[in-house]
Amino acid sequence: MFITFEGIDGCGKSTQARLLFELLNKEGGAVLTREPGGWEGGGTLRDIVLSGDLRHPWSELFLFMLDRTEHAARVIGPAISEGRHVVCERYHDSTLAYQVWGRGMPFEPLRDMAKLAALPEPDVTLFFKIKPALALSRVGKRGKPDSFEREGLAFMEKIDRGYRSLAEMEPRRWAVIECGDRNPAEIFAQVKDVLAERGLPL
Amino acid sequence: MFITFEGIDGCGKSTQARLLFELLNKEGGAVLTREPGGWEGGGTLRDIVLSGDLRHPWSELFLFMLDRTEHAARVIGPAISEGRHVVCERYHDSTLAYQVWGRGMPFEPLRDMAKLAALPEPDVTLFFKIKPALALSRVGKRGKPDSFEREGLAFMEKIDRGYRSLAEMEPRRWAVIECGDRNPAEIFAQVKDVLAERGLPL
Repeated sequence: MFITFEGIDGCGKSTQARLLFELLNKEGGAVLTREPGGWEGGGTLRDIVLSGDLRHPWSELFLFMLDRTEHAARVIGPAISEGRHVVCERYHDSTLAYQVWGRGMPFEPLRDMAKLAALPEPDVTLFFKIKPALALSRVGKRGKPDSFEREGLAFMEKIDRGYRSLAEMEPRRWAVIECGDRNPAEIFAQVKDVLAERGLPL
Repeated sequence: MFITFEGIDGCGKSTQARLLFELLNKEGGAVLTREPGGWEGGGTLRDIVLSGDLRHPWSELFLFMLDRTEHAARVIGPAISEGRHVVCERYHDSTLAYQVWGRGMPFEPLRDMAKLAALPEPDVTLFFKIKPALALSRVGKRGKPDSFEREGLAFMEKIDRGYRSLAEMEPRRWAVIECGDRNPAEIFAQVKDVLAERGLPL
């Protein structure tokens, strides 16, 4: 199964992705990866994206897409072909939430880019829903914010609306995990329930 | 005026672009640039593109688009705003010719990307038409071929068909310069004639 983890920064998806990976990988063979930068050579692109040193509003999009196509060709695609479970933190839905809802770019052409480029489609996408103010206060404790985090609360609220809209559009693929202020173990119990409902008993 | 120079490698467009730039720049202020890589920081992207070390068929497209949006935001757009003449070797039509006709990617989404990203539209695009076999024999004398040149004659013939189709679609913007085996001075005389017809007497 190809499972993607989505949500604004500070929602706890990295912790959950690691918990799921560890469970799936008990007998080996599972893959834990993330975007941007989840491939050899992708670190440089990740640095460019997160430094915010791009002048044209569409550059960020093209950089993310380039990162994604290489990630798909080198990491995700081969792992799926070999029958491995792939847990991926952020994927094309991040681009839609951040670029369309966050930056005001057009939805359909961006959505269609993934199809045109024949990117692997996730079997399940988990949206870790959390109040943007709570997520932001957590991120603030981590140190130097990246270019998205610097955008602040109003921006994070737009991204949150984006994720909620995307989850409504494709309920068969998406599952919403209401994080509230539950602890990671409680949240992970729900992740396992959701995956069991989708055909992956854990 | 924003004037773009197009044609397969070895068609002579670099020489012609330089001749035009020198003429336009007699009183200073003109800009001569090129893609990929025509901006500070673009050299790295140019190296990635021309080395051919990308694994997904769409990565090349996204890298070119990223290069173009930054080039437009940092170089072409500001120069146009200041009323300067801009001479640019290769632009979005190269992407259409190489990716669509060369690589078999879909025309409309790629054409529309330039509009969606609000890239500056050229006032005149000059297509330096030459027999692909002749162009390739010239390129062969230059040394180590890049990833496109390695594709060989059949590929260059596809690109040539692409350029001819694009020129037919938008005859008001495009002008075809029949290079044959004429010398650079003869070709440049035609370039000046064409630009005079389009409202730029030289």
